[in-house]
Formats: sequence, C-alpha cells, structure tokens
Amino acid sequence: MSDLPTRVRICEEGPREGFQSEPVGIATQDKVALIDALAQSGLRDIACCSFVDTTRVPQMADAEAIAAGLTKRDGVHYTGLWLNRAGFQRARATKLDLTGLVVSSASETFGIRNNNRDRAGMQTSQATLMTDYRDAGVDVFSAYVFTAFGCNFEGAIAPALVMRAIEGLLQIVENPEVVYLCDTIGSATPSSVERLVAEVRSRWPDLPLGLHLHDTRGVGMANALVGLQLGIARFDTSIGGLGGCPFAGNAAAAGNLCTEDLAYLCEEMGIETGLDLNALIEAAKMAERIVGHALPGKLKQAGLPVA
Amino acid sequence: MSDLPTRVRICEEGPREGFQSEPVGIATQDKVALIDALAQSGLRDIACCSFVDTTRVPQMADAEAIAAGLTKRDGVHYTGLWLNRAGFQRARATKLDLTGLVVSSASETFGIRNNNRDRAGMQTSQATLMTDYRDAGVDVFSAYVFTAFGCNFEGAIAPALVMRAIEGLLQIVENPEVVYLCDTIGSATPSSVERLVAEVRSRWPDLPLGLHLHDTRGVGMANALVGLQLGIARFDTSIGGLGGCPFAGNAAAAGNLCTEDLAYLCEEMGIETGLDLNALIEAAKMAERIVGHALPGKLKQAGLPVA
Repeated sequence: MSDLPTRVRICEEGPREGFQSEPVGIATQDKVALIDALAQSGLRDIACCSFVDTTRVPQMADAEAIAAGLTKRDGVHYTGLWLNRAGFQRARATKLDLTGLVVSSASETFGIRNNNRDRAGMQTSQATLMTDYRDAGVDVFSAYVFTAFGCNFEGAIAPALVMRAIEGLLQIVENPEVVYLCDTIGSATPSSVERLVAEVRSRWPDLPLGLHLHDTRGVGMANALVGLQLGIARFDTSIGGLGGCPFAGNAAAAGNLCTEDLAYLCEEMGIETGLDLNALIEAAKMAERIVGHALPGKLKQAGLPVA
Repeated sequence: MSDLPTRVRICEEGPREGFQSEPVGIATQDKVALIDALAQSGLRDIACCSFVDTTRVPQMADAEAIAAGLTKRDGVHYTGLWLNRAGFQRARATKLDLTGLVVSSASETFGIRNNNRDRAGMQTSQATLMTDYRDAGVDVFSAYVFTAFGCNFEGAIAPALVMRAIEGLLQIVENPEVVYLCDTIGSATPSSVERLVAEVRSRWPDLPLGLHLHDTRGVGMANALVGLQLGIARFDTSIGGLGGCPFAGNAAAAGNLCTEDLAYLCEEMGIETGLDLNALIEAAKMAERIVGHALPGKLKQAGLPVA
C-alpha cells in the first residue's frame, strides 16, 4: 500500500446531498445546527445547500436561509452547489464561500435528467459560468464528472466517455484544484476505480483527482481504499452516510460513503484527516435525530474500539 | 492487485452466528427455510447451528431440530459449531456434515467469556476433541483464532498473541484445511489485516488462511479487499449482514460482513464465487422477513446495477 497519501481532505456533502435526498420538511435551524456541529469536528469543506430549481428539489428551497443562518468559523469553507448562472448568482448573494464549480456528466442521459441539458448544452452552460466566476473574483475551481462509473439509464460507462467529459471540463478550466470522479449511482467497484484512475492518469498524469463515492452496493469503502492505495487524497462523503441522488433512478439505493467511517479508516491507517472522530460520531447521531430514522454509517453505532 | 485469487470460497454464517445474535423466538422452520434458500444460491458451506450451552445461547436450543429439518442437497456442506466434546457428540448424532473444528482465542479474556476456559484449559479441551474426531472418522480440520485483531476487553491484540494461538492450534492439528483469522469484535482495519497476514506468512508461508470478518465500523469490505489483494480465498460471511457475537461486549455493534455484498464485489472483480447473486438477494430479503427488521447489507436494497 505504498502510494497511500499522508493526509486526506474529506469534504462533507451531508447537509446538501444528504438532506436533499430526504422528504421535504427538515427545519432550516436543524440544517444550520448540523453544519455547525460538522464545522466543530475539524471538517474544512462543508457543502451546505444547493442553489438549484426549487420545483425539482424543494428540499433546498431554504438555501438562502441556511446560508444566512450560519455562524462561520475561521478556516472552514462553507460551500454550495449550483449547475448554472442563475444558481451561481443566488449563491453569490449569500455569505457562502465561493468555489468555481464546473460539472459534466459521462452519461448524457443522466446529464439530461439531472441538469436538463444535453452534452453540448452542458458544455456551453458551464463555459458561460466562467464569465461570472471571473466577475466574482473566484480563482479556485473544482470539476465534477457525474456518472463516471455507471448510470442507471445507460448502464456501465466506458472510460472513454469519462475522458471526453474531462476533456470538455479542461477546455473550460485549465487548472482545476480537483477533478472529482463521481460514482453518482454507486456502481463503482475496486476494479473499475483502479481502471479509470489509471486511464485518466495515463493521459493527464498530474491532474489532481478526487472521488465522490456512494455506498449503494456495500463496496463504497473498498472503493475508497483503492483510491487511497492509488494516492488519491480527496474524498466527498456524507455524515452518517446520509444521501443519494434524486435523479439517479433508484430510490431504494443507499446513500453516500459515510464521513466518519472513512475518517476512522484513514486514521487507523495512519493517514491524517484533521478530524475529531468522537465529534463526527456526535454529529452523525444529530443527523439521525434530524431525519428521524437510522442512517447507514456504522461507527456511530459501535463507537471507537477499546484502545 | 496482482495477488487476487481467481476463485473464492464464501462460507455462510448467517443461520448460526446471525440467528444467535437475534432475540430468542425464531421458528425452527424459518431457520430451515433460510438454510434451504442459501443452499439454492450456490453456497457450498453453510453453518446451520451451534451445539453450545443452551442456557447461555438459548437461540440455539433447537440445534438438533434444525439439523433434523434439513433436506440436504448434494455438494453442500451443512456444518455446525461446537466448542467442546459434549457439543461435538451432539452434532455427531445429527445428519450434519462434520468438520474437525479447533478453536483458540488470541485474547485470553475473550476466551474465558466465550469458551469459559483460560488459555491452557482451551488448549487441553481442543486437544481432547481430536480423540473424538478420529473416532468419528473426521479428516478435514478448520482452525479458528478468535479476536485476532482486537478485543473489547483487552483492546488491540498484538500479532504475537495470534502467533502463539496458531502455534497452539498447529500442535493439535498438523494440516488444517484453513486457519481463520477472526475479527470477532470488528476492529480490524486494512493496515492490521495486511500486517497480521504478513506476520503469519513470514512464519508459516504455506498456511491456508481465511478471514472471518465483521462490519462493526464500516470498514469490513475494505478489509476483505485487502485479504483478496493478498491472495486470501476463503471468507466467512453472513447473509444480509446478520450477526454479531453475544460475548464480544458491544451489543450495539453491527453484524458480520455481508455475504451478497462480498459476492457482488468478487464477481465484479472477475473473481469466481459460484454464487447466484439474485438468489442471494432473495435469501437476504427472506432473512430480513424472518428477523422482522432491516439488515445492514446494501445490495438487497439497491439490486444489481443496470448492465
């Protein structure tokens, strides 16, 4: 396991991707309280809400109110998601920290369902966003490739489609801080992670890759381990394993890879996370109380092992 | 991942370790029906019940009735667990398939709680069993090292204690078919699996190792992946992730590694299991109906990915 990173950056998606997978009705103040608990656990990147079509994602109708309710802590990036210019303008009007997001979808069908745009339309829409980013003084960019491993509509995704998506993203943003390979529907496996990372690196050896993983079929942590073994040091996860994607076409599917379980794995392997595992466990229990049902993460149930 | 085995043998522990972790009251006929469904999925080793002290494990008071209820299918080993001569004599009187079990515990405290014997007493008791095995014509032996990675009473377990336990087992059985390193309390991590396997192999390069894994802290599948990467080809798992150990000192802990999720991982990586994933999913749903609550396995919820 020689390529293990010495330190990882775990970015929290629970308040955004997690809560938007739950039924409407979670109180804004509960969302804000969870974000605050997460910020106290040492997390430095917290996706707080989405600025997307509220008729399609009514769970995020309070995005502005969430941002307004935050008490920002030094060193924490309170981020949001948007998929177009209108979304960015809404985010820009809040006190959230702005990163230049550019997104693409390896599966065109998923892109149409999720972003309401075909491949060409998505490319144009993302390119146009750059004008606004420059205008807002944004100079850090994160790129996301949705459905990089599979799609519930198109099935398994060939690496060539991911390469094409990355090509498109790099035409828009020359030096992204990270390019996330997103296992949007949770069909990645250790083999497909290894294969795709190798293929991307053979073309772009220095591109900083991240993994956005789901644990839909019980192999999410094994996928994360392969990422770590390949030296990947950036992961998107969700507290308690909250989450899922409402447009992925499988409502029964389990959520995102669990933040505290991944942090536990890393710390036990000597990979620094900067996170307080006990604080994460408390935040996961808070998330469970807020949604009112059990969440799939395991560490919160068992606790840390006896030393 | 060059040491991946081409084929694995996944041994089912759900009817035994799973049901003994549930409250008393599961009907014998339900247990038998699940065993039959499991046998139809291609599983070739199914632990059906325990012949242990029924005052301590009342869930297994119907061990003989379970064995009597089975309709045995060709090629399937219907096995049981016992920890002493009295248990073996009970098993021998049934139509179960007999394997010569020898057990040890790396943690002496756990051994006392689980087997009611200190280290010396356990060694003597297991050695004495061999007389009965010879008498019964048993010539295949499986060895188990409980708490090989950690113990809820003693904490982390030094590899030296595991080496001592294996030494003791090999004094009793010269050529075990498998020596299982058991993560009884679910505290193994990818690093500790790698370290322990390396240490054991440095002393006994040809000892056939198996892993008995739990998913107590969300890293069970990552541990299994490390085992596969090290060429380990034998795993104990439990349908739906049923399970846990009543004497491990953590009632809140999640169960065994999930059979169908591991089988999915293997098949997706091109490692032959001989298992029918859809049949396993149906068996996992049956297990959920029988226990009357959700089980932690993920694949049964999401189903196989779109091809």
